[in-house]
Amino acid sequence: MKGLCYTGEPRPVFRTDLPVPEPGERESLIKIRLAAICSTDREVLAGYKPDFRGVMGHEFVGTVERSPDASLVGARVVGELNAGCGECIYCRTGREGHCIHRRVIGLADKDGCFAEYMTLRTDLLHRIPDGLPDEVAVFCEPLAAALEIPDKVHVRPSEPAAVVGDGRLALMIAQVLALTGAEVVVAGKHPEKLERFRPFARTELREDETFELVVDASGSASGFETARKLVRHRGTLVLKSTFAEKTPMNLADFVVNEVTLVGSRCGPFEPALRLLERGLVTLPPIELYPLEEYEAAFGSRAFKSGFRF
Amino acid sequence: MKGLCYTGEPRPVFRTDLPVPEPGERESLIKIRLAAICSTDREVLAGYKPDFRGVMGHEFVGTVERSPDASLVGARVVGELNAGCGECIYCRTGREGHCIHRRVIGLADKDGCFAEYMTLRTDLLHRIPDGLPDEVAVFCEPLAAALEIPDKVHVRPSEPAAVVGDGRLALMIAQVLALTGAEVVVAGKHPEKLERFRPFARTELREDETFELVVDASGSASGFETARKLVRHRGTLVLKSTFAEKTPMNLADFVVNEVTLVGSRCGPFEPALRLLERGLVTLPPIELYPLEEYEAAFGSRAFKSGFRF
Repeated sequence: MKGLCYTGEPRPVFRTDLPVPEPGERESLIKIRLAAICSTDREVLAGYKPDFRGVMGHEFVGTVERSPDASLVGARVVGELNAGCGECIYCRTGREGHCIHRRVIGLADKDGCFAEYMTLRTDLLHRIPDGLPDEVAVFCEPLAAALEIPDKVHVRPSEPAAVVGDGRLALMIAQVLALTGAEVVVAGKHPEKLERFRPFARTELREDETFELVVDASGSASGFETARKLVRHRGTLVLKSTFAEKTPMNLADFVVNEVTLVGSRCGPFEPALRLLERGLVTLPPIELYPLEEYEAAFGSRAFKSGFRF
Repeated sequence: MKGLCYTGEPRPVFRTDLPVPEPGERESLIKIRLAAICSTDREVLAGYKPDFRGVMGHEFVGTVERSPDASLVGARVVGELNAGCGECIYCRTGREGHCIHRRVIGLADKDGCFAEYMTLRTDLLHRIPDGLPDEVAVFCEPLAAALEIPDKVHVRPSEPAAVVGDGRLALMIAQVLALTGAEVVVAGKHPEKLERFRPFARTELREDETFELVVDASGSASGFETARKLVRHRGTLVLKSTFAEKTPMNLADFVVNEVTLVGSRCGPFEPALRLLERGLVTLPPIELYPLEEYEAAFGSRAFKSGFRF
């Protein structure tokens, strides 16, 4: 089968001779319909996961071809990334996504979805509601990551919240926060991207404005600095950026100002599917390429790009 | 002017000889455009507020005719109910709505909105966005009451939440909870009312199902009993019902099961206006009568009824 692999080099390798993977006992075999490129995939190429080798990609929509759960065969699905060992302290305390030995599709010890077929543990699959197009369902994983924020911290409708950043994740986070009724203020640098936030958020900061809740989804050290300045004393700063550079910072600020810092990564799929099914989160269209044209797909400046199989 | 008054009797008194009220120093004069009947108004007639006398009603849309804030004159507004004394412990600690000496339109020591004109403290007014029709804006107050729930307790998108009751308030609460992405399950008794919840909620309980978060908006002792059974040990039960009867209950259950009970009443107006403006909360139309036809309005079996001036 065709697949796009990470080999430790800064460019992915396109292969046509990969074997169709054989599902393990609790796994299903999934025929990939659509796969999307995440900025994490670009970070993998930049060296973010030096130990990983194999098929890249973790955002997908597929059809179940074989499964221990017969009712799933033929169903369209999305899937969670992290498969835990089932035995470590995290797996035993309801935090499988943080398993020390976890296998993560396209990122750690497990082939991903930039290929015609992929295997995944069956209980990590989520059935896509009938009316939801593939091109929308593929946003389930990043939207789930946005939903991790209200899952972890209390978002109050009567408190304005700030989002730093104007990229894809910021757009999803801002929409999720605005659905609570809270006033959302976006601090971004790109006027053309900020335009997308206007229907549900304010895009200009007022002088000396501060917030009880600030989310940094900027992906940059300067964005983090902005977020640090925006958060009120005793407020909460949610960190959604995974920028690789080390940044000199004075943590004493957070101590003195009694700021709570909350790191956040993957989130819950089912709420994401519910919001997408009801059309409550709107996103620009994804630009799709055949897998062979991976250079164009990775080089695309569209809101989101990916592959159609 | 015309007005509908509570005189201590179980039937309101329609008058045509009321003087147009004179606004106090910090108040505005509001010409009422639309006013809605709340179940609390019916409870007033049943004796819920024995000390109150005067014009009834607290849900309204009006136009500002005179105001110390010149920019408000001519604006369409909704308004908050509670005006505090500014001096008691609640007013001094950000809880003006709980002021011991508070005046509440149509409910305590202050004429309400079932009349052609009403006065209200100017800082309690909220400007209605341009595109929002009066007939929708009038739902701002009850929707704000629903929004008090996510303002007070942490609603997690990945935890199902239950609402007991299928009336007006329950419909708004269920929608507000569903906007978080959480699965919402409604426990109601009226198949025709439950129909309204289907687009965003499940309306059948599964056997032995329990919830981390349960909201009782049933308005009845039996609904409270249902809510008590649905809430998990260590879970949260939000009380939105204000049924008047005293109910024998065993509070030890809540101690042993470590349930948190949260009473909740009025809520924030601005988030309600934002959700209504974006069309994110949908409600059946309100049935409107001239004030003279107050008997038909109070007797209406429509989802919501009220008066057009």
